[in-house]
Amino acid sequence: MKDSPEYLAKKAFFDKVLTIYGRNAVLEALEDQNITIHKLHLSKSNKDAPVLEQMKHLAKKRNIEVKYHDKASLSRISKNAKQDQGVALDIVLEHFGDEESFISKNINYRIIALDGVTNPQNLGMIIRSCAAGNIDAILLPTKGAAQISPLVIKASAGTLFKMPIIKTSDLKQTLRRFKEEGAALYTLSSHARKSYKEEHYSDKSVFVLGNESEGVSPAIEALCNASVAIPMQRGVESLNVAVTASLLAFL
Amino acid sequence: MKDSPEYLAKKAFFDKVLTIYGRNAVLEALEDQNITIHKLHLSKSNKDAPVLEQMKHLAKKRNIEVKYHDKASLSRISKNAKQDQGVALDIVLEHFGDEESFISKNINYRIIALDGVTNPQNLGMIIRSCAAGNIDAILLPTKGAAQISPLVIKASAGTLFKMPIIKTSDLKQTLRRFKEEGAALYTLSSHARKSYKEEHYSDKSVFVLGNESEGVSPAIEALCNASVAIPMQRGVESLNVAVTASLLAFL
Repeated sequence: MKDSPEYLAKKAFFDKVLTIYGRNAVLEALEDQNITIHKLHLSKSNKDAPVLEQMKHLAKKRNIEVKYHDKASLSRISKNAKQDQGVALDIVLEHFGDEESFISKNINYRIIALDGVTNPQNLGMIIRSCAAGNIDAILLPTKGAAQISPLVIKASAGTLFKMPIIKTSDLKQTLRRFKEEGAALYTLSSHARKSYKEEHYSDKSVFVLGNESEGVSPAIEALCNASVAIPMQRGVESLNVAVTASLLAFL
Repeated sequence: MKDSPEYLAKKAFFDKVLTIYGRNAVLEALEDQNITIHKLHLSKSNKDAPVLEQMKHLAKKRNIEVKYHDKASLSRISKNAKQDQGVALDIVLEHFGDEESFISKNINYRIIALDGVTNPQNLGMIIRSCAAGNIDAILLPTKGAAQISPLVIKASAGTLFKMPIIKTSDLKQTLRRFKEEGAALYTLSSHARKSYKEEHYSDKSVFVLGNESEGVSPAIEALCNASVAIPMQRGVESLNVAVTASLLAFL
């Protein structure tokens, strides 16, 4: 029943679920009324601690289901046995979705697509700047790139919960889909003739930013329609990727 | 002889000297012909290692003095016994100086002043963006703030060696000096009426950015002439300080 309405609804729901872990991160999320929470997972091996009581209290108050697991199962849920500290939390990211649901809801848009950004601090800063600036969504590959984690949430200063994020398991295919849909894809290049401030961008624009040291991968670059430059002084060759995203977000 | 010409010349020289440590950082600096180097310090307790041979070879080639110390003296030089790995290097930052030498050489300018930025990653990114953008100097307090360290050099992607930095032991007094000199001091505030893009800035402008969580300290804020806002979407309240510096550097 891979395309029954039930299956698709379930898939759409679980696409939005993110499991975070670690006592501080979980407690902060439970305390934040803006975050929709699905389930709290606790390890049966946890020793009594005030912070766990607080979590249970908040879960009860917010009517959130609490599940108890043996240590091994909890690790499978958190996917990070070393750092989960016996707690995990399924949060629902209302603004997460796939490209089709984004396209169905947006006529004109400016998207930042990340091709292999691996540093969680950078990803968090990019989310924060895009949320504050004029970017409608971040296109985030689920492979070969930093994933949403407590570190990213922290670096995003909580803005992750406000920012539309399109997840893709195939960046190339998703960028192609946007192109078919009429979007123009832009990369940044120091060799580009036009400055990023001078370019007349399409009403449907996707800016593709690359990995911290390698830049945009050749296969993705080949898809792009145009490139723009950020003019730099003193022979500086590049900016931090989060800074580049911020300059585009505040164009 | 606190103000003899010899004393002052010596002080001006040592104001520009920065001691870095750690084998990777030291080797990278020795390899970089753009960096002026004063002295290489090695601990007598170091065991033979190819990387040390390479350092000595580079020092000889570049005609740099090598000094050997016992372990305790080397730690006093590096000021970081835990991380120095038995090596330290005095580098000369030609672009470092005090406010008087900056004022004597610049008529119009845009300065970023940092009031208590404590995160070395942020400081490095700020240096990188200011070096690439339209900022003439960074005003950096020597107390209560991140100091230049190997981590900062790394986060600056080597641009530290290109960027004029004015060091001050008293930020308030130095900002007063700039004000007397005719500069306008700006802070950022979400309550400001004017957007940072609309403001007509003075030909001599100093932008004061505050600590990551506390912002600009009240005593410094009271000195400022005007404040400008970066308009933000989705109820986001603030940006990363390095992002803010970058937006100003690329105004």
